[in-house]
Amino acid sequence: MTKIEKMVELTQLMENEVFMAFASYTTIVLSKMMFMSTATAFYRLTRKVFANPEDCAGFGKGENAKKYLRTDDRVERVRRAHLNDLENIVPFLGIGLLYSLSGPDLSTAILHFRLFVGARIYHTIAYLIPLPQPNRALAFFLGYGVTLSMAYRLLRSRLYL
Amino acid sequence: MTKIEKMVELTQLMENEVFMAFASYTTIVLSKMMFMSTATAFYRLTRKVFANPEDCAGFGKGENAKKYLRTDDRVERVRRAHLNDLENIVPFLGIGLLYSLSGPDLSTAILHFRLFVGARIYHTIAYLIPLPQPNRALAFFLGYGVTLSMAYRLLRSRLYL
Amino acid sequence: MTKIEKMVELTQLMENEVFMAFASYTTIVLSKMMFMSTATAFYRLTRKVFANPEDCAGFGKGENAKKYLRTDDRVERVRRAHLNDLENIVPFLGIGLLYSLSGPDLSTAILHFRLFVGARIYHTIAYLIPLPQPNRALAFFLGYGVTLSMAYRLLRSRLYL
Repeated sequence: MTKIEKMVELTQLMENEVFMAFASYTTIVLSKMMFMSTATAFYRLTRKVFANPEDCAGFGKGENAKKYLRTDDRVERVRRAHLNDLENIVPFLGIGLLYSLSGPDLSTAILHFRLFVGARIYHTIAYLIPLPQPNRALAFFLGYGVTLSMAYRLLRSRLYL
Repeated sequence: MTKIEKMVELTQLMENEVFMAFASYTTIVLSKMMFMSTATAFYRLTRKVFANPEDCAGFGKGENAKKYLRTDDRVERVRRAHLNDLENIVPFLGIGLLYSLSGPDLSTAILHFRLFVGARIYHTIAYLIPLPQPNRALAFFLGYGVTLSMAYRLLRSRLYL
Repeated sequence: MTKIEKMVELTQLMENEVFMAFASYTTIVLSKMMFMSTATAFYRLTRKVFANPEDCAGFGKGENAKKYLRTDDRVERVRRAHLNDLENIVPFLGIGLLYSLSGPDLSTAILHFRLFVGARIYHTIAYLIPLPQPNRALAFFLGYGVTLSMAYRLLRSRLYL
């Protein structure tokens, strides 16, 4: 088989509609998660709240700088939202990838991806504003349910232990 | 190549026994990790221990609700177990996926997956009960060693820098 | 199609140079992240700083052991570096995998992988020594920018919503 034929074969994965949809939604939700780092950095700098002595060296010398080594409600809130993203997007990444490769129905798969990404974006909004409960809880359980639904469909069709 | 032929090609990945085994064990260990979120929510609600003011608004007004903004040994223990899962399952997810695609021997691969999933389930049990050390430490190092073994086999056969 | 033909097809993914490079760099950066667990364990044991009562049972009985349930600047520093790794390597893992499958130019792809892995290794060194800022900040933003660049290239060529 020639090199060109091989490359044609490889790009097939990206010509599969379910896989392309998974790639797009995953890239969006991971970029959203990366935004949380920027939000943390923004609040740390504007509120002068740092975790490391070397980070606040620019704001004063010696003891004067140490007063910025503290915690802040807003920074901790962003960090909790970020960790919650990690805890939920990692299972989506693994289970969603394998689910996408298991040959699911296109419209069912896209419905799963859209609901998950929508739920995680709403979760972040509800966490950062913050909106009263149960806004955040519902967003959390929607994303959680979508991932479990993909896991169930995957194991039902492809269990191999 | 027709559309039907292309779908046949794609499903080949899921007809590969190593990949199907990886998909099954990964789905199980990620579902187990997701269970930690439910465990945290359960302890937060039954022990009335919350991290956000909006979460305890239903338990009282104003200052009365603020007393539920606290930390609790049991909740913190579940959260540490959850973070330890993340720290160990993310490397397994990445290295295991690439290892599965590198054409390993089926029985060797399944042994790796089973040991890892068993070690992480035992780690969670040892953390939550808790069992005396070195139960948790041994479970941790078994899972850690399995992932390093897959990384070594992968780099030995396919290193390309 | 016979079984042998199928295995030939499957190993094609690992004969693709971009994918092999992604596999190698990912395995290295995930192994580096796993090293953070060992660093935490090392500092916990040498400094006798533990998070769980069962972990310090070997250092004394009852109240005498409880004094080791504390936090320590060095341990917390390693843990922050580890969490920062997780927050940044997870997006690289997901976006990088999909980017690798989207048929990018080999030298461009390898440049992305090398810069990311180099940035994360330098980030860890800058965090643990620690080096004065902006060493760590620059390492962070380099890795962050590389991942965003892959996300942009992927969405530009393959957006499917």
